[in-house]
Amino acid sequence: MTADSWSLEEVVSNCANSGISTIAVWRHKINGDASKASAMIQSAGLNVSSLCRGGWFSAPTAEERRKRIEDNRVAIEQAALLGAPVLVIVSGPANGQSLSDARATVMDGLMEVLPDAERAGVILGVEPLHPMYAAERSVVVTLKQANDIVDQLQSPSARVVIDVFHVWWDPDVMQQIERARGKIAGFHVSDWSVPLPGILMGRSMMGDGVIELRKLRLAVDAAGYTGPIEVEIFNEDIWKNADNGLLELTKQRFIEHV
Amino acid sequence: MTADSWSLEEVVSNCANSGISTIAVWRHKINGDASKASAMIQSAGLNVSSLCRGGWFSAPTAEERRKRIEDNRVAIEQAALLGAPVLVIVSGPANGQSLSDARATVMDGLMEVLPDAERAGVILGVEPLHPMYAAERSVVVTLKQANDIVDQLQSPSARVVIDVFHVWWDPDVMQQIERARGKIAGFHVSDWSVPLPGILMGRSMMGDGVIELRKLRLAVDAAGYTGPIEVEIFNEDIWKNADNGLLELTKQRFIEHV
Repeated sequence: MTADSWSLEEVVSNCANSGISTIAVWRHKINGDASKASAMIQSAGLNVSSLCRGGWFSAPTAEERRKRIEDNRVAIEQAALLGAPVLVIVSGPANGQSLSDARATVMDGLMEVLPDAERAGVILGVEPLHPMYAAERSVVVTLKQANDIVDQLQSPSARVVIDVFHVWWDPDVMQQIERARGKIAGFHVSDWSVPLPGILMGRSMMGDGVIELRKLRLAVDAAGYTGPIEVEIFNEDIWKNADNGLLELTKQRFIEHV
Repeated sequence: MTADSWSLEEVVSNCANSGISTIAVWRHKINGDASKASAMIQSAGLNVSSLCRGGWFSAPTAEERRKRIEDNRVAIEQAALLGAPVLVIVSGPANGQSLSDARATVMDGLMEVLPDAERAGVILGVEPLHPMYAAERSVVVTLKQANDIVDQLQSPSARVVIDVFHVWWDPDVMQQIERARGKIAGFHVSDWSVPLPGILMGRSMMGDGVIELRKLRLAVDAAGYTGPIEVEIFNEDIWKNADNGLLELTKQRFIEHV
């Protein structure tokens, strides 16, 4: 997503050329054909860390909620075809339900698709989003809430995904990272620059903001996480100017700051 | 603040003409002369609900932190002169300290000025701000955190201020409102429209957004709060177009939605 202006082919070939061995895939990049995307990624010798995204469970009618469940089943299947160990779950906004009903709908949806994930060998990675996205993207807004959900689901196929941009502000974050021990399915990095360039496209390159990246990374390490770390920067300026320098800069900043 | 484009004189006379009996005062409106402002407000027959703001404790050097303490003492004195029962405390950003050091600085600062507030008969109203302001305005970002601070201060002169815009997203908000029983010093309303018009100026008129205003108001009522409810809308379009219709609209929307 850091190079959203590139096609999947370009991402794969540029990453392979830059010695980046693992990528996170977004569903809009695979045009519904996970097998083809998987073959292309594998032939370049790359691994897939996760597929983004499932979730988005809440809707004003039961029929629409049913469609969301079906879409999550498709996403689980796509993750399995891609060899992605994790399907990132962004819960979605309330979307016509009350906030508490929407949160119950998210729980119901996860319980319903969890057996599919277990059968497919795919982990549902519940990612809390920053509270500024509560109205538009995610009724799950704290790591505590994601940990609570995962505790209720009681399955090795249900874990949390921790993105520094979404959780850095939380007075409870260190405790919740420790609480997530053994249940962390992903760790995403970017930065929060001041002033923030925007709400949806406001993320910055590591080192350009105020997030205590190393501290959070050490906490995730200390909680036993040894999986890939994804760089996920939604930023239109970075997208517009994405050339080969982007991956070198990303690697350099990652080493310096994460 | 809903009519920031008006002078204090205009706010006072327009409110008096519209049957609004109580106003919240911001310090930039009184030009350092609280006695003069107080006389003007009183002569129009209005009450002051609160003075905004104290706080902003964190700074990179001890000398600067000392100046912040002194400024809070001035603010307490101004609140007393204005007859404002509450000085709203916006904690301030980390401002060169680490997040955890800044949070400790806020606690230290509050402990230091609390005896002044007690002597002056002014309540320090600790207001958590939305986490999207963590980098620029407030390291206190949840009502739980504000409740924890107030519990530690153990004084009737230390309470919390609850603003719906800052807390509506929080899965824990209902419990924390109940926990604040007897310690709520203010309740602020506005709305969160989708998409949000901006980060600092993004608030909307009640009814134009997704905040469950009535639900939150009933929770605050149920927790025993009987004080004034402040309408606090930072929105440049509202400021630009502020005429007498603004107060009528505000009253109507308040009655309909709060």
